[in-house]
Amino acid sequence: MQSRAHQLHREGRRIAFVPTMGFLHTGHLSLMRIARERGDILVISIFVNPTQFAPGEDFEAYPRDMPRDLGLAESVGTDIVFTPDNEMMYAEGFQTYVSPENLSRGMCGKSRPIFFRGVATVVTKLFNIVRPDIAVFGEKDYQQLVIIRRMVRDLDFGIEIVGGPTVRENDGLAMSSRNAYLRPDQRAAALSLYQALQLSRTLVKAGERQADKIIAAAKRHIASFDGTAIDYVVIVDPETLDDMTVVDRPARMALAVKVGATRLIDNMALGEDLADRPA
Amino acid sequence: MQSRAHQLHREGRRIAFVPTMGFLHTGHLSLMRIARERGDILVISIFVNPTQFAPGEDFEAYPRDMPRDLGLAESVGTDIVFTPDNEMMYAEGFQTYVSPENLSRGMCGKSRPIFFRGVATVVTKLFNIVRPDIAVFGEKDYQQLVIIRRMVRDLDFGIEIVGGPTVRENDGLAMSSRNAYLRPDQRAAALSLYQALQLSRTLVKAGERQADKIIAAAKRHIASFDGTAIDYVVIVDPETLDDMTVVDRPARMALAVKVGATRLIDNMALGEDLADRPA
Repeated sequence: MQSRAHQLHREGRRIAFVPTMGFLHTGHLSLMRIARERGDILVISIFVNPTQFAPGEDFEAYPRDMPRDLGLAESVGTDIVFTPDNEMMYAEGFQTYVSPENLSRGMCGKSRPIFFRGVATVVTKLFNIVRPDIAVFGEKDYQQLVIIRRMVRDLDFGIEIVGGPTVRENDGLAMSSRNAYLRPDQRAAALSLYQALQLSRTLVKAGERQADKIIAAAKRHIASFDGTAIDYVVIVDPETLDDMTVVDRPARMALAVKVGATRLIDNMALGEDLADRPA
Repeated sequence: MQSRAHQLHREGRRIAFVPTMGFLHTGHLSLMRIARERGDILVISIFVNPTQFAPGEDFEAYPRDMPRDLGLAESVGTDIVFTPDNEMMYAEGFQTYVSPENLSRGMCGKSRPIFFRGVATVVTKLFNIVRPDIAVFGEKDYQQLVIIRRMVRDLDFGIEIVGGPTVRENDGLAMSSRNAYLRPDQRAAALSLYQALQLSRTLVKAGERQADKIIAAAKRHIASFDGTAIDYVVIVDPETLDDMTVVDRPARMALAVKVGATRLIDNMALGEDLADRPA
Protein backbone atom coordinates (compact mmCIF):
# COMPACT_ATOMS: atom_id res chain seq x y z
CA MET A 1 0.00 0.00 0.00
CA GLN A 2 2.77 2.43 0.96
CA SER A 3 4.79 1.91 -2.23
CA ARG A 4 1.57 2.11 -4.26
CA ALA A 5 0.85 5.44 -2.57
CA HIS A 6 4.35 6.72 -3.40
CA GLN A 7 3.85 5.66 -7.01
CA LEU A 8 0.46 7.44 -7.18
CA HIS A 9 2.03 10.63 -5.82
CA ARG A 10 4.83 10.44 -8.38
CA GLU A 11 2.09 10.27 -11.02
CA GLY A 12 0.62 13.44 -9.53
CA ARG A 13 -2.53 11.76 -8.23
CA ARG A 14 -4.36 13.06 -5.19
CA ILE A 15 -5.23 10.35 -2.66
CA ALA A 16 -8.45 10.70 -0.65
CA PHE A 17 -8.83 8.38 2.29
CA VAL A 18 -11.63 7.13 4.55
CA PRO A 19 -10.50 4.92 7.44
CA THR A 20 -13.24 2.60 8.74
CA MET A 21 -13.76 -0.39 11.00
CA GLY A 22 -15.96 -1.97 8.34
CA PHE A 23 -19.57 -3.16 8.57
CA LEU A 24 -20.21 -0.24 6.27
CA HIS A 25 -23.48 1.67 6.36
CA THR A 26 -24.90 4.69 4.56
CA GLY A 27 -22.91 6.98 6.85
CA HIS A 28 -19.62 5.47 5.69
CA LEU A 29 -20.74 5.58 2.07
CA SER A 30 -21.50 9.29 2.37
CA LEU A 31 -17.95 9.91 3.67
CA MET A 32 -16.60 7.88 0.77
CA ARG A 33 -18.63 9.91 -1.72
CA ILE A 34 -17.22 13.13 -0.22
CA ALA A 35 -13.69 11.69 -0.52
CA ARG A 36 -14.43 10.44 -4.05
CA GLU A 37 -15.18 14.01 -5.13
CA ARG A 38 -12.10 15.48 -3.47
CA GLY A 39 -9.42 13.14 -4.74
CA ASP A 40 -8.28 11.26 -7.82
CA ILE A 41 -7.86 7.96 -6.00
CA LEU A 42 -10.24 6.81 -3.27
CA VAL A 43 -8.65 4.57 -0.65
CA ILE A 44 -10.61 3.14 2.25
CA SER A 45 -9.28 0.98 5.05
CA ILE A 46 -11.21 -1.69 6.92
CA PHE A 47 -9.58 -2.60 10.21
CA VAL A 48 -11.16 -3.24 13.59
CA ASN A 49 -8.40 -1.68 15.66
CA PRO A 50 -7.71 -3.60 18.88
CA THR A 51 -5.79 -0.79 20.61
CA GLN A 52 -8.87 1.41 20.89
CA PHE A 53 -10.90 -1.24 22.73
CA ALA A 54 -10.41 -1.77 26.46
CA PRO A 55 -10.73 -5.26 27.96
CA GLY A 56 -14.45 -5.99 28.37
CA GLU A 57 -15.44 -3.75 25.46
CA ASP A 58 -16.84 -5.17 22.23
CA PHE A 59 -13.68 -5.85 20.18
CA GLU A 60 -14.56 -9.50 19.56
CA ALA A 61 -18.28 -8.86 19.14
CA TYR A 62 -17.81 -5.87 16.81
CA PRO A 63 -19.79 -6.71 13.65
CA ARG A 64 -17.76 -7.72 10.59
CA ASP A 65 -18.83 -8.55 7.01
CA MET A 66 -15.95 -8.20 4.57
CA PRO A 67 -17.64 -9.56 1.40
CA ARG A 68 -20.56 -7.18 1.83
CA ASP A 69 -18.18 -4.28 2.64
CA LEU A 70 -16.15 -4.89 -0.52
CA GLY A 71 -19.32 -4.76 -2.61
CA LEU A 72 -20.43 -1.52 -0.98
CA ALA A 73 -16.96 0.00 -1.38
CA GLU A 74 -17.03 -0.80 -5.07
CA SER A 75 -20.51 0.68 -5.42
CA VAL A 76 -19.19 4.17 -4.56
CA GLY A 77 -16.11 3.88 -6.77
CA THR A 78 -13.43 2.94 -4.25
CA ASP A 79 -10.09 2.35 -5.96
CA ILE A 80 -8.24 0.59 -3.15
CA VAL A 81 -9.54 -1.20 -0.07
CA PHE A 82 -6.72 -1.60 2.45
CA THR A 83 -7.41 -4.45 4.88
CA PRO A 84 -4.44 -5.03 7.16
CA ASP A 85 -4.51 -7.67 9.89
CA ASN A 86 -3.56 -7.37 13.56
CA GLU A 87 -0.17 -9.05 13.18
CA MET A 88 0.79 -6.62 10.43
CA MET A 89 -0.37 -3.55 12.34
CA TYR A 90 0.88 -4.53 15.79
CA ALA A 91 3.99 -6.64 15.48
CA GLU A 92 5.63 -8.21 18.52
CA GLY A 93 7.19 -5.58 20.73
CA PHE A 94 4.91 -2.79 19.49
CA GLN A 95 5.21 0.08 21.95
CA THR A 96 5.00 3.47 20.27
CA TYR A 97 1.73 5.31 20.85
CA VAL A 98 0.40 8.67 19.72
CA SER A 99 -1.28 10.34 22.68
CA PRO A 100 -3.62 13.29 22.40
CA GLU A 101 -3.77 14.99 25.77
CA ASN A 102 -6.36 17.58 26.90
CA LEU A 103 -8.89 16.95 24.14
CA SER A 104 -9.02 13.25 24.97
CA ARG A 105 -9.72 13.61 28.69
CA GLY A 106 -13.39 14.59 28.75
CA MET A 107 -16.51 13.18 27.08
CA CYS A 108 -15.84 9.68 25.72
CA GLY A 109 -12.29 9.76 27.11
CA LYS A 110 -13.65 9.64 30.66
CA SER A 111 -15.31 6.26 30.32
CA ARG A 112 -12.89 5.03 27.64
CA PRO A 113 -9.46 6.23 28.86
CA ILE A 114 -7.33 4.41 26.24
CA PHE A 115 -9.74 4.93 23.34
CA PHE A 116 -8.31 8.08 21.76
CA ARG A 117 -4.72 6.95 22.20
CA GLY A 118 -5.67 3.86 20.21
CA VAL A 119 -7.46 5.95 17.58
CA ALA A 120 -4.61 8.47 17.21
CA THR A 121 -2.06 5.66 16.96
CA VAL A 122 -3.88 3.66 14.32
CA VAL A 123 -4.75 6.76 12.31
CA THR A 124 -1.07 7.80 12.37
CA LYS A 125 -0.12 4.37 11.08
CA LEU A 126 -2.81 4.44 8.39
CA PHE A 127 -1.78 7.96 7.33
CA ASN A 128 1.84 6.84 7.06
CA ILE A 129 0.89 3.80 5.00
CA VAL A 130 -1.84 5.30 2.77
CA ARG A 131 -0.20 8.76 2.44
CA PRO A 132 -3.44 10.60 1.74
CA ASP A 133 -3.69 14.23 0.66
CA ILE A 134 -7.12 14.41 2.24
CA ALA A 135 -8.97 12.24 4.75
CA VAL A 136 -12.65 12.26 5.65
CA PHE A 137 -13.97 11.53 9.15
CA GLY A 138 -17.59 11.52 10.28
CA GLU A 139 -18.95 14.31 12.47
CA LYS A 140 -20.86 11.55 14.26
CA ASP A 141 -17.62 10.86 16.17
CA TYR A 142 -17.18 14.52 16.95
CA GLN A 143 -14.51 14.30 19.64
CA GLN A 144 -12.49 11.99 17.40
CA LEU A 145 -12.75 14.46 14.51
CA VAL A 146 -11.50 17.33 16.69
CA ILE A 147 -8.64 15.21 18.05
CA ILE A 148 -7.57 14.08 14.57
CA ARG A 149 -7.58 17.68 13.31
CA ARG A 150 -5.39 18.66 16.27
CA MET A 151 -3.07 15.68 15.76
CA VAL A 152 -2.63 16.50 12.07
CA ARG A 153 -1.72 20.07 12.96
CA ASP A 154 0.49 19.14 15.94
CA LEU A 155 2.47 16.44 14.12
CA ASP A 156 2.59 18.22 10.72
CA PHE A 157 0.96 15.49 8.67
CA GLY A 158 0.09 17.95 5.93
CA ILE A 159 -3.24 16.20 5.32
CA GLU A 160 -6.51 18.04 4.83
CA ILE A 161 -9.11 16.71 7.27
CA VAL A 162 -12.75 16.98 6.19
CA GLY A 163 -15.68 16.33 8.50
CA GLY A 164 -18.64 14.54 6.91
CA PRO A 165 -22.15 15.31 8.21
CA THR A 166 -23.87 12.65 10.32
CA VAL A 167 -26.23 10.48 8.30
CA ARG A 168 -29.40 9.42 10.08
CA GLU A 169 -32.06 6.76 9.68
CA ASN A 170 -35.49 8.03 8.65
CA ASP A 171 -36.48 8.26 12.31
CA GLY A 172 -33.37 10.32 13.19
CA LEU A 173 -31.16 7.64 14.75
CA ALA A 174 -27.53 8.37 13.83
CA MET A 175 -26.11 5.63 11.61
CA SER A 176 -23.63 3.43 13.47
CA SER A 177 -22.31 -0.07 13.01
CA ARG A 178 -23.23 -0.59 16.66
CA ASN A 179 -26.93 -0.02 15.87
CA ALA A 180 -26.82 -3.68 14.82
CA TYR A 181 -26.68 -4.53 18.53
CA LEU A 182 -30.08 -2.91 19.22
CA ARG A 183 -33.10 -5.14 19.72
CA PRO A 184 -36.33 -3.86 18.11
CA ASP A 185 -37.75 -3.01 21.54
CA GLN A 186 -34.69 -0.81 22.28
CA ARG A 187 -35.15 1.33 19.21
CA ALA A 188 -37.49 3.87 20.85
CA ALA A 189 -35.02 4.40 23.69
CA ALA A 190 -32.16 4.76 21.20
CA LEU A 191 -34.10 7.53 19.48
CA SER A 192 -34.05 9.56 22.69
CA LEU A 193 -30.49 10.73 21.86
CA TYR A 194 -31.58 12.43 18.66
CA GLN A 195 -34.72 13.78 20.29
CA ALA A 196 -32.73 15.25 23.17
CA LEU A 197 -30.44 17.03 20.69
CA GLN A 198 -33.42 18.37 18.74
CA LEU A 199 -35.07 19.50 21.96
CA SER A 200 -31.89 21.34 22.93
CA ARG A 201 -31.71 23.09 19.58
CA THR A 202 -35.30 24.17 20.01
CA LEU A 203 -34.56 25.57 23.46
CA VAL A 204 -31.56 27.56 22.16
CA LYS A 205 -33.62 28.88 19.24
CA ALA A 206 -36.29 29.96 21.74
CA GLY A 207 -33.66 31.98 23.60
CA GLU A 208 -32.43 29.68 26.36
CA ARG A 209 -28.73 30.41 26.99
CA GLN A 210 -27.97 28.52 30.21
CA ALA A 211 -26.12 25.32 29.33
CA ASP A 212 -27.07 23.61 32.60
CA LYS A 213 -30.77 24.13 31.93
CA ILE A 214 -30.49 22.79 28.39
CA ILE A 215 -28.47 19.79 29.57
CA ALA A 216 -30.96 19.07 32.35
CA ALA A 217 -33.84 19.07 29.88
CA ALA A 218 -31.95 16.75 27.53
CA LYS A 219 -31.13 14.37 30.38
CA ARG A 220 -34.72 14.36 31.60
CA HIS A 221 -35.92 13.41 28.14
CA ILE A 222 -33.43 10.54 27.81
CA ALA A 223 -34.05 9.28 31.34
CA SER A 224 -37.78 9.11 30.63
CA PHE A 225 -37.12 6.05 28.45
CA ASP A 226 -36.73 2.64 30.08
CA GLY A 227 -33.33 1.01 29.65
CA THR A 228 -31.31 4.18 29.09
CA ALA A 229 -28.24 5.00 31.21
CA ILE A 230 -26.63 8.37 30.50
CA ASP A 231 -22.83 8.43 30.30
CA TYR A 232 -22.58 12.17 29.59
CA VAL A 233 -24.46 15.10 28.07
CA VAL A 234 -22.27 18.16 27.48
CA ILE A 235 -22.30 21.48 25.67
CA VAL A 236 -18.76 22.31 24.59
CA ASP A 237 -16.71 24.71 22.54
CA PRO A 238 -16.61 23.19 19.05
CA GLU A 239 -12.79 23.35 18.87
CA THR A 240 -11.38 23.15 22.39
CA LEU A 241 -14.17 20.85 23.68
CA ASP A 242 -14.13 22.92 26.88
CA ASP A 243 -17.48 23.01 28.70
CA MET A 244 -19.56 26.09 27.97
CA THR A 245 -21.82 27.55 30.62
CA VAL A 246 -23.59 30.08 28.40
CA VAL A 247 -24.62 29.33 24.83
CA ASP A 248 -23.96 32.80 23.43
CA ARG A 249 -21.94 31.60 20.43
CA PRO A 250 -21.85 28.46 18.29
CA ALA A 251 -21.52 25.37 20.48
CA ARG A 252 -21.58 21.61 20.16
CA MET A 253 -23.84 19.39 22.19
CA ALA A 254 -22.61 15.83 22.54
CA LEU A 255 -23.92 12.86 24.45
CA ALA A 256 -23.29 9.21 25.15
CA VAL A 257 -26.01 6.92 26.41
CA LYS A 258 -26.14 3.22 27.07
CA VAL A 259 -29.29 1.58 25.74
CA GLY A 260 -29.22 -1.85 27.31
CA ALA A 261 -25.65 -3.03 26.74
CA THR A 262 -25.14 -0.83 23.66
CA ARG A 263 -23.28 2.45 24.06
CA LEU A 264 -24.52 5.07 21.56
CA ILE A 265 -23.16 8.54 20.88
CA ASP A 266 -24.52 11.50 18.97
CA ASN A 267 -23.94 15.25 18.71
CA MET A 268 -25.28 18.36 17.06
CA ALA A 269 -24.40 22.01 16.52
CA LEU A 270 -26.22 24.48 18.76
CA GLY A 271 -26.62 28.19 18.10
CA GLU A 272 -24.85 28.28 14.73
CA ASP A 273 -26.62 31.58 14.04
CA LEU A 274 -25.21 33.23 17.18
CA ALA A 275 -22.24 35.53 16.64
CA ASP A 276 -19.01 33.54 16.89
CA ARG A 277 -16.93 35.54 19.30
CA PRO A 278 -13.27 34.65 19.41
CA ALA A 279 -12.25 33.45 22.88
CA MET B 1 9.92 22.47 3.44
CA GLN B 2 7.07 19.97 3.19
CA SER B 3 5.96 21.12 -0.26
CA ARG B 4 9.60 21.22 -1.37
CA ALA B 5 9.93 17.61 -0.19
CA HIS B 6 6.81 16.58 -2.13
CA GLN B 7 8.23 18.26 -5.21
CA LEU B 8 11.58 16.47 -4.80
CA HIS B 9 9.79 13.13 -4.50
CA ARG B 10 7.78 13.85 -7.63
CA GLU B 11 11.10 14.42 -9.38
CA GLY B 12 12.21 11.01 -8.15
CA ARG B 13 14.86 12.35 -5.76
CA ARG B 14 15.86 10.46 -2.64
CA ILE B 15 15.94 12.64 0.48
CA ALA B 16 18.53 11.84 3.18
CA PHE B 17 18.05 13.59 6.50
CA VAL B 18 20.12 14.34 9.60
CA PRO B 19 18.19 16.03 12.44
CA THR B 20 20.41 18.00 14.80
CA MET B 21 20.23 20.50 17.63
CA GLY B 22 23.02 22.50 15.99
CA PHE B 23 26.40 23.55 17.38
CA LEU B 24 27.71 21.08 14.86
CA HIS B 25 30.87 19.10 15.47
CA THR B 26 32.81 16.43 13.60
CA GLY B 27 30.33 13.81 14.83
CA HIS B 28 27.44 15.56 13.12
CA LEU B 29 29.49 16.09 9.97
CA SER B 30 30.25 12.38 9.79
CA LEU B 31 26.49 11.62 9.95
CA MET B 32 25.93 14.19 7.23
CA ARG B 33 28.59 12.58 5.04
CA ILE B 34 26.91 9.19 5.49
CA ALA B 35 23.56 10.73 4.53
CA ARG B 36 25.17 12.58 1.61
CA GLU B 37 26.28 9.24 0.15
CA ARG B 38 22.91 7.57 0.64
CA GLY B 39 20.60 10.18 -0.88
CA ASP B 40 20.27 12.62 -3.75
CA ILE B 41 19.31 15.53 -1.54
CA LEU B 42 20.84 16.11 1.88
CA VAL B 43 18.56 17.87 4.35
CA ILE B 44 19.63 18.70 7.88
CA SER B 45 17.55 20.36 10.56
CA ILE B 46 18.84 22.59 13.33
CA PHE B 47 16.37 22.92 16.16
CA VAL B 48 16.97 22.91 19.91
CA ASN B 49 13.79 21.06 20.84
CA PRO B 50 12.21 22.38 24.05
CA THR B 51 9.97 19.34 24.66
CA GLN B 52 12.92 17.06 25.35
CA PHE B 53 14.29 19.28 28.12
CA ALA B 54 12.83 19.13 31.61
CA PRO B 55 12.62 22.27 33.75
CA GLY B 56 16.08 22.83 35.26
CA GLU B 57 17.88 21.13 32.36
CA ASP B 58 20.05 23.09 29.93
CA PHE B 59 17.54 24.20 27.27
CA GLU B 60 18.45 27.89 27.59
CA ALA B 61 22.16 27.24 28.07
CA TYR B 62 22.42 24.74 25.20
CA PRO B 63 25.15 26.10 22.89
CA ARG B 64 23.99 27.70 19.63
CA ASP B 65 25.96 29.15 16.70
CA MET B 66 23.86 29.32 13.54
CA PRO B 67 26.31 31.19 11.25
CA ARG B 68 29.06 28.69 12.01
CA ASP B 69 26.62 25.76 11.62
CA LEU B 70 25.49 26.98 8.19
CA GLY B 71 29.10 27.14 7.03
CA LEU B 72 29.82 23.63 8.29
CA ALA B 73 26.62 22.30 6.71
CA GLU B 74 27.67 23.76 3.38
CA SER B 75 31.15 22.27 3.71
CA VAL B 76 29.74 18.73 3.54
CA GLY B 77 27.35 19.47 0.68
CA THR B 78 24.08 20.02 2.52
CA ASP B 79 21.30 21.00 0.10
CA ILE B 80 18.74 22.26 2.59
CA VAL B 81 19.12 23.43 6.18
CA PHE B 82 15.71 23.43 7.89
CA THR B 83 15.66 25.78 10.88
CA PRO B 84 12.17 26.01 12.35
CA ASP B 85 11.43 28.09 15.43
CA ASN B 86 9.55 27.14 18.58
CA GLU B 87 6.35 28.95 17.61
CA MET B 88 6.21 27.08 14.32
CA MET B 89 6.91 23.70 15.89
CA TYR B 90 4.76 24.06 18.99
CA ALA B 91 1.80 26.27 18.25
CA GLU B 92 -0.64 27.29 20.96
CA GLY B 93 -2.67 24.35 22.16
CA PHE B 94 -0.06 21.79 21.10
CA GLN B 95 -0.93 18.53 22.84
CA THR B 96 -0.20 15.48 20.68
CA TYR B 97 2.84 13.50 21.78
CA VAL B 98 4.50 10.37 20.45
CA SER B 99 5.36 8.13 23.39
CA PRO B 100 7.77 5.23 23.22
CA GLU B 101 7.05 2.95 26.16
CA ASN B 102 9.32 0.12 27.44
CA LEU B 103 12.48 1.19 25.62
CA SER B 104 12.28 4.67 27.12
CA ARG B 105 11.96 3.61 30.76
CA GLY B 106 15.52 2.56 31.61
CA MET B 107 18.93 4.18 31.14
CA CYS B 108 18.56 7.89 30.29
CA GLY B 109 14.76 7.60 30.65
CA LYS B 110 15.11 7.06 34.39
CA SER B 111 16.72 10.41 35.14
CA ARG B 112 15.08 12.16 32.15
CA PRO B 113 11.48 10.86 32.18
CA ILE B 114 10.09 13.18 29.46
CA PHE B 115 13.20 13.13 27.27
CA PHE B 116 12.33 10.35 24.83
CA ARG B 117 8.73 11.46 24.48
CA GLY B 118 10.10 14.86 23.41
CA VAL B 119 12.57 13.24 21.02
CA ALA B 120 9.99 10.89 19.46
CA THR B 121 7.53 13.76 19.06
CA VAL B 122 9.94 16.17 17.39
CA VAL B 123 11.41 13.46 15.16
CA THR B 124 7.87 12.52 14.06
CA LYS B 125 7.21 16.15 13.20
CA LEU B 126 10.52 16.51 11.37
CA PHE B 127 9.91 13.27 9.44
CA ASN B 128 6.45 14.50 8.43
CA ILE B 129 7.84 17.85 7.28
CA VAL B 130 11.09 16.72 5.63
CA ARG B 131 9.70 13.41 4.24
CA PRO B 132 13.07 11.65 4.12
CA ASP B 133 13.69 8.27 2.51
CA ILE B 134 16.58 7.72 4.88
CA ALA B 135 17.63 9.34 8.13
CA VAL B 136 20.94 9.07 9.98
CA PHE B 137 21.25 9.13 13.77
CA GLY B 138 24.43 8.84 15.81
CA GLU B 139 25.21 5.68 17.77
CA LYS B 140 26.51 8.02 20.46
CA ASP B 141 22.87 8.43 21.52
CA TYR B 142 22.33 4.69 21.48
CA GLN B 143 19.02 4.48 23.35
CA GLN B 144 17.62 7.21 21.11
CA LEU B 145 18.71 5.30 18.00
CA VAL B 146 16.99 2.11 19.21
CA ILE B 147 13.82 4.03 20.11
CA ILE B 148 13.70 5.80 16.74
CA ARG B 149 14.14 2.48 14.90
CA ARG B 150 11.27 1.01 16.93
CA MET B 151 9.11 4.09 16.36
CA VAL B 152 9.67 3.98 12.61
CA ARG B 153 8.64 0.33 12.55
CA ASP B 154 5.69 0.76 14.94
CA LEU B 155 4.22 3.79 13.18
CA ASP B 156 5.05 2.67 9.62
CA PHE B 157 7.09 5.69 8.60
CA GLY B 158 8.74 3.74 5.79
CA ILE B 159 12.05 5.50 6.43
CA GLU B 160 15.39 3.70 6.52
CA ILE B 161 17.21 4.48 9.76
CA VAL B 162 21.00 4.33 9.66
CA GLY B 163 23.19 4.47 12.75
CA GLY B 164 26.43 6.46 12.37
CA PRO B 165 29.47 5.38 14.41
CA THR B 166 30.50 7.57 17.34
CA VAL B 167 33.24 10.02 16.46
CA ARG B 168 35.79 10.66 19.20
CA GLU B 169 38.38 13.29 20.00
CA ASN B 170 42.00 12.14 19.74
CA ASP B 171 41.98 11.23 23.41
CA GLY B 172 38.79 9.12 23.03
CA LEU B 173 36.17 11.52 24.41
CA ALA B 174 32.96 11.06 22.42
CA MET B 175 32.10 14.18 20.44
CA SER B 176 29.17 16.07 21.91
CA SER B 177 27.93 19.64 21.77
CA ARG B 178 27.83 19.45 25.57
CA ASN B 179 31.62 18.96 25.72
CA ALA B 180 31.69 22.74 25.35
CA TYR B 181 30.54 22.90 28.97
CA LEU B 182 33.67 21.12 30.25
CA ARG B 183 36.39 23.14 31.92
CA PRO B 184 39.96 22.09 31.04
CA ASP B 185 40.42 20.61 34.53
CA GLN B 186 37.33 18.38 33.98
CA ARG B 187 38.65 16.83 30.83
CA ALA B 188 40.53 13.98 32.55
CA ALA B 189 37.41 13.03 34.50
CA ALA B 190 35.33 13.17 31.29
CA LEU B 191 37.74 10.72 29.70
CA SER B 192 36.88 8.13 32.35
CA LEU B 193 33.72 7.23 30.41
CA TYR B 194 35.67 6.11 27.36
CA GLN B 195 38.30 4.41 29.50
CA ALA B 196 35.63 2.49 31.44
CA LEU B 197 34.16 1.24 28.16
CA GLN B 198 37.58 0.21 26.86
CA LEU B 199 38.34 -1.53 30.16
CA SER B 200 35.05 -3.44 29.90
CA ARG B 201 35.83 -4.55 26.34
CA THR B 202 39.20 -5.77 27.53
CA LEU B 203 37.60 -7.76 30.34
CA VAL B 204 35.12 -9.40 27.95
CA LYS B 205 37.93 -10.22 25.52
CA ALA B 206 39.85 -11.80 28.41
CA GLY B 207 36.89 -14.08 29.09
CA GLU B 208 34.88 -12.28 31.78
CA ARG B 209 31.17 -13.04 31.24
CA GLN B 210 29.52 -11.74 34.43
CA ALA B 211 27.88 -8.39 33.68
CA ASP B 212 27.87 -7.32 37.32
CA LYS B 213 31.64 -7.80 37.60
CA ILE B 214 32.30 -5.83 34.42
CA ILE B 215 29.95 -3.05 35.52
CA ALA B 216 31.58 -2.91 38.96
CA ALA B 217 35.03 -2.53 37.39
CA ALA B 218 33.79 0.23 35.10
CA LYS B 219 32.16 2.08 37.99
CA ARG B 220 35.29 1.78 40.10
CA HIS B 221 37.33 3.32 37.34
CA ILE B 222 34.96 6.26 36.86
CA ALA B 223 34.57 6.83 40.60
CA SER B 224 38.34 7.05 40.96
CA PHE B 225 38.20 10.48 39.27
CA ASP B 226 37.29 13.53 41.32
CA GLY B 227 34.11 15.31 40.29
CA THR B 228 32.38 12.34 38.65
CA ALA B 229 28.87 11.22 39.68
CA ILE B 230 27.62 8.06 37.98
CA ASP B 231 24.02 8.13 36.75
CA TYR B 232 24.08 4.59 35.33
CA VAL B 233 26.35 1.95 33.87
CA VAL B 234 24.50 -0.92 32.17
CA ILE B 235 25.10 -3.84 29.86
CA VAL B 236 22.01 -4.40 27.75
CA ASP B 237 20.64 -6.34 24.83
CA PRO B 238 21.45 -4.18 21.76
CA GLU B 239 17.82 -4.24 20.54
CA THR B 240 15.51 -4.66 23.52
CA LEU B 241 17.78 -2.69 25.90
CA ASP B 242 16.94 -5.31 28.56
CA ASP B 243 19.69 -5.80 31.15
CA MET B 244 21.96 -8.76 30.45
CA THR B 245 23.47 -10.73 33.33
CA VAL B 246 25.84 -12.84 31.24
CA VAL B 247 27.78 -11.47 28.27
CA ASP B 248 27.62 -14.61 26.13
CA ARG B 249 26.45 -12.85 23.00
CA PRO B 250 26.83 -9.36 21.50
CA ALA B 251 25.85 -6.71 24.03
CA ARG B 252 25.90 -2.96 24.44
CA MET B 253 27.46 -1.22 27.37
CA ALA B 254 26.09 2.26 28.01
CA LEU B 255 26.74 4.81 30.69
CA ALA B 256 25.85 8.27 31.85
CA VAL B 257 28.06 10.25 34.19
CA LYS B 258 27.93 13.76 35.51
CA VAL B 259 31.25 15.55 35.39
CA GLY B 260 30.67 18.61 37.49
CA ALA B 261 27.35 19.97 36.18
CA THR B 262 27.76 18.38 32.74
CA ARG B 263 25.96 15.12 32.03
CA LEU B 264 27.89 12.99 29.53
CA ILE B 265 26.85 9.71 27.90
CA ASP B 266 28.76 7.13 25.93
CA ASN B 267 28.37 3.50 24.84
CA MET B 268 30.21 0.72 23.09
CA ALA B 269 29.60 -2.75 21.68
CA LEU B 270 30.80 -5.64 23.84
CA GLY B 271 31.48 -9.18 22.66
CA GLU B 272 30.67 -8.61 18.98
CA ASP B 273 32.66 -11.76 18.21
CA LEU B 274 30.51 -13.93 20.50
CA ALA B 275 27.86 -16.03 18.77
CA ASP B 276 24.63 -14.04 18.51
CA ARG B 277 22.04 -16.40 19.90
CA PRO B 278 18.45 -15.47 19.18
CA ALA B 279 16.55 -14.84 22.44
